[in-house]
Amino acid sequence: MTDATDTTDSADSTDSVYDMVVLGAGSGGYAAALRGAQLGLSVALVEADKVGGTCLHRGCVPTKAILHSAETAQAVREAGALGVRAAYKGVDMDAVQAYKNGIITRMYKGLEGLVSSRGIDLVHGWGRLVAPDAVEVNGRRYTGRNIVLASGSVSKTIGQEISGPVMTSEEALELDHVPSSAIVLGGGVIGVEFASAWAAMGSSVTIIEGLPRLVPAEDEAISKQLERAFRKRKIAFRTNTMFESVERTDTGVRVRTADGGTYDAEVLLIAVGRGPATAGLGYEEVGVSMDRGFVLTDELGRTSVDGVWAVGDIVPGVQLAHRGFAQGIVVAETIAGLDPRPVDDVLVPKVTFCEPEIASVGLSEARAAEVHGAENVVTSEFNVAGNAKSQILGTQGFVKLVALKDGTIVGFHAIGARMGEQVGEGQLIVSWEATADDVASLLHAHPTQNETIGEAAMALAGKPLHNHG
Amino acid sequence: MTDATDTTDSADSTDSVYDMVVLGAGSGGYAAALRGAQLGLSVALVEADKVGGTCLHRGCVPTKAILHSAETAQAVREAGALGVRAAYKGVDMDAVQAYKNGIITRMYKGLEGLVSSRGIDLVHGWGRLVAPDAVEVNGRRYTGRNIVLASGSVSKTIGQEISGPVMTSEEALELDHVPSSAIVLGGGVIGVEFASAWAAMGSSVTIIEGLPRLVPAEDEAISKQLERAFRKRKIAFRTNTMFESVERTDTGVRVRTADGGTYDAEVLLIAVGRGPATAGLGYEEVGVSMDRGFVLTDELGRTSVDGVWAVGDIVPGVQLAHRGFAQGIVVAETIAGLDPRPVDDVLVPKVTFCEPEIASVGLSEARAAEVHGAENVVTSEFNVAGNAKSQILGTQGFVKLVALKDGTIVGFHAIGARMGEQVGEGQLIVSWEATADDVASLLHAHPTQNETIGEAAMALAGKPLHNHG
Repeated sequence: MTDATDTTDSADSTDSVYDMVVLGAGSGGYAAALRGAQLGLSVALVEADKVGGTCLHRGCVPTKAILHSAETAQAVREAGALGVRAAYKGVDMDAVQAYKNGIITRMYKGLEGLVSSRGIDLVHGWGRLVAPDAVEVNGRRYTGRNIVLASGSVSKTIGQEISGPVMTSEEALELDHVPSSAIVLGGGVIGVEFASAWAAMGSSVTIIEGLPRLVPAEDEAISKQLERAFRKRKIAFRTNTMFESVERTDTGVRVRTADGGTYDAEVLLIAVGRGPATAGLGYEEVGVSMDRGFVLTDELGRTSVDGVWAVGDIVPGVQLAHRGFAQGIVVAETIAGLDPRPVDDVLVPKVTFCEPEIASVGLSEARAAEVHGAENVVTSEFNVAGNAKSQILGTQGFVKLVALKDGTIVGFHAIGARMGEQVGEGQLIVSWEATADDVASLLHAHPTQNETIGEAAMALAGKPLHNHG
Repeated sequence: MTDATDTTDSADSTDSVYDMVVLGAGSGGYAAALRGAQLGLSVALVEADKVGGTCLHRGCVPTKAILHSAETAQAVREAGALGVRAAYKGVDMDAVQAYKNGIITRMYKGLEGLVSSRGIDLVHGWGRLVAPDAVEVNGRRYTGRNIVLASGSVSKTIGQEISGPVMTSEEALELDHVPSSAIVLGGGVIGVEFASAWAAMGSSVTIIEGLPRLVPAEDEAISKQLERAFRKRKIAFRTNTMFESVERTDTGVRVRTADGGTYDAEVLLIAVGRGPATAGLGYEEVGVSMDRGFVLTDELGRTSVDGVWAVGDIVPGVQLAHRGFAQGIVVAETIAGLDPRPVDDVLVPKVTFCEPEIASVGLSEARAAEVHGAENVVTSEFNVAGNAKSQILGTQGFVKLVALKDGTIVGFHAIGARMGEQVGEGQLIVSWEATADDVASLLHAHPTQNETIGEAAMALAGKPLHNHG
């Protein structure tokens, strides 16, 4: 894939040995490159497409732009209840695309500027690991004292041909219209985000999920609340329902499920997760230990081959851009001789940008019970019905803290409009092993949604303020 | 002021001695009452109007409701840029009022339910301190081992008659239409919030501020950014400009300023701050030490008279509901024999809900230089231009951290759409005396606005990720 705006190769010598050759310029790869260069390492960054990777070009950023258009469509439709007279006239998907692409372009230019300003050699082309210390790109060999594998992930397609009405998130992001109806296969993060956006834009959406609940990686209470909200929003979903087949019809697709159900819609979005993009890149041939396509590493990102490291979605665990950033930084710092703190997946904050938004970090109640024993786990919930700002936004939801009996908070879970942004305080609380008393004694600004955290902590500390019941 | 929906007197005996008699059921007073009752104290709560006070009925909550209507009006007008076809047809102020009052009513009912469920005796009527251990209401005496003064504040009027087109925030909140033009006297929190809301609803607004900058209590960089944003929004402002007089005209008001300027508009909003509501309540007669109408206390809320305490806006310092809550809790806990941490005004988070929103906690750069010496202070700014979610929201602004040379973060300042909610993490950082390294080593979820804090901390720690320059 070539692109006129892309950075051209700036590596003019293949003879020099880099301190780091990074294979893939997505979140994990470019973070490693930026941090490495900052620490004085010589860095080559190899990318076949554009710096920024899936997250910027085909993932996090474009979906959030579309979700904001969707949020605005919803706001326009519901404006009357707030005293704002407005007529909603539908979504102009070309204009949504222009808006979305404008943001991507701006962020991309910023990122290119950063990479260039730090003296990183950006190598354009498909790279392949050909030795423990070398990556080959377009027939040229780039040698590094360290190689960082950061080839990212691709949407799983469960054996289906991706074309026409059968799509993954990548195609869904480029649609030139809002599908009148959609079946979303998978009720995880990607599935519920698209379902939420499309429904807000007027689409009739049905989610099919094999597990017993939507967002099955979240605390069970969060799933229940999301399901309640989706029901209210007329987003249909079938949990415990296994996909069997899809056929193209005159009007779109017909999906059959294992329980004998059939579902017709204009499009099928396959959102069953992302697999590692590691095939054919030479990793196994060089001796890197792998497991079902993932690259195995220690907590600092070292693979089984000395001098070869891996970061991001190819490393088993939560596939999130900010985990990639952090792993990239840890690898660069370790290579540079620093002693960084490893990335702990439990402390990776997670936000799902459906409406209502979901934020979490740390352990769910069920997981805390497994780890610490149910008898040692206590929880506290604050319903946003008691929170003025949430009432102003007209949302429903809660904050739930999961703690040990001694008061240490080990899990933070929130759901409600705009609640994703609360994850920052949640993450500090859990990472710093704060107790309910620590948080309860601090002030939370009124009237913010942020108060819900203070209220939940006060309740957990045995001194609820605005908490009923 | 009577109200049909209000709780009637439930105190059936004036002979019993309460553990606490609380004079005023606003934020500070009801928090003291709720916490006291929770700790087993017998409590009488005296209120002439409604439980919830200024904040719920005439302050924080109604302004934020109107600001959300305003935000929605703006969103409708700007929806086209996001690909959402919408026609904006103006604001229906009756419907805005209904929306606003609906929220107040809901929160009020919740609060009444709480007060009642905790067994607090709510006494309806004007109370007056008549002895160090007694409050008189409608000729009846309520005796308490402790008296908590929580009579709150009123808008300052600088000697002007409040009627017709000359109003304070209280009248402004009840307007049945959007003024076509408005002069806002005072560029502090209340002034910029109303200016922001009215401008978004189509009013032509001019702010007149005597000090050199808008929001003069904030870090200077915040004021500059707000002024830039207001210029862009066509909200006029004159700083360094002293009010001289206002006269009524056929079309509204004519305001004269000391520099010879004249300003015509439909209304004048006087938003020059709030003064303590302590006149005629018997405080001085009983011997309570006061200063210009404020009640003096120690850090735990004790006045100069044994057994008499004070909380909230009558105590010198920042006049914010959540400071009142916290002071009320501290007083109740101290009375109950606990050993609470005093409320430190420096650690009180502040949010201004204009567009763009402002959040801060801790020391401004200038104040940090005064306290710690300019040579010991360092700062870090992250511009939201480098933050994907902020770009999606189309906002401008930054996060600024103020730190000591050893890395301890002593001030958090943020501005941008929706940035008010970031104050939660800011507040934990400053309250827990976190260092740049502490915060930089933690993960912030992508793509949230919350990332701006992580980026600013990384830059401060010498390891900027997405920070240019």
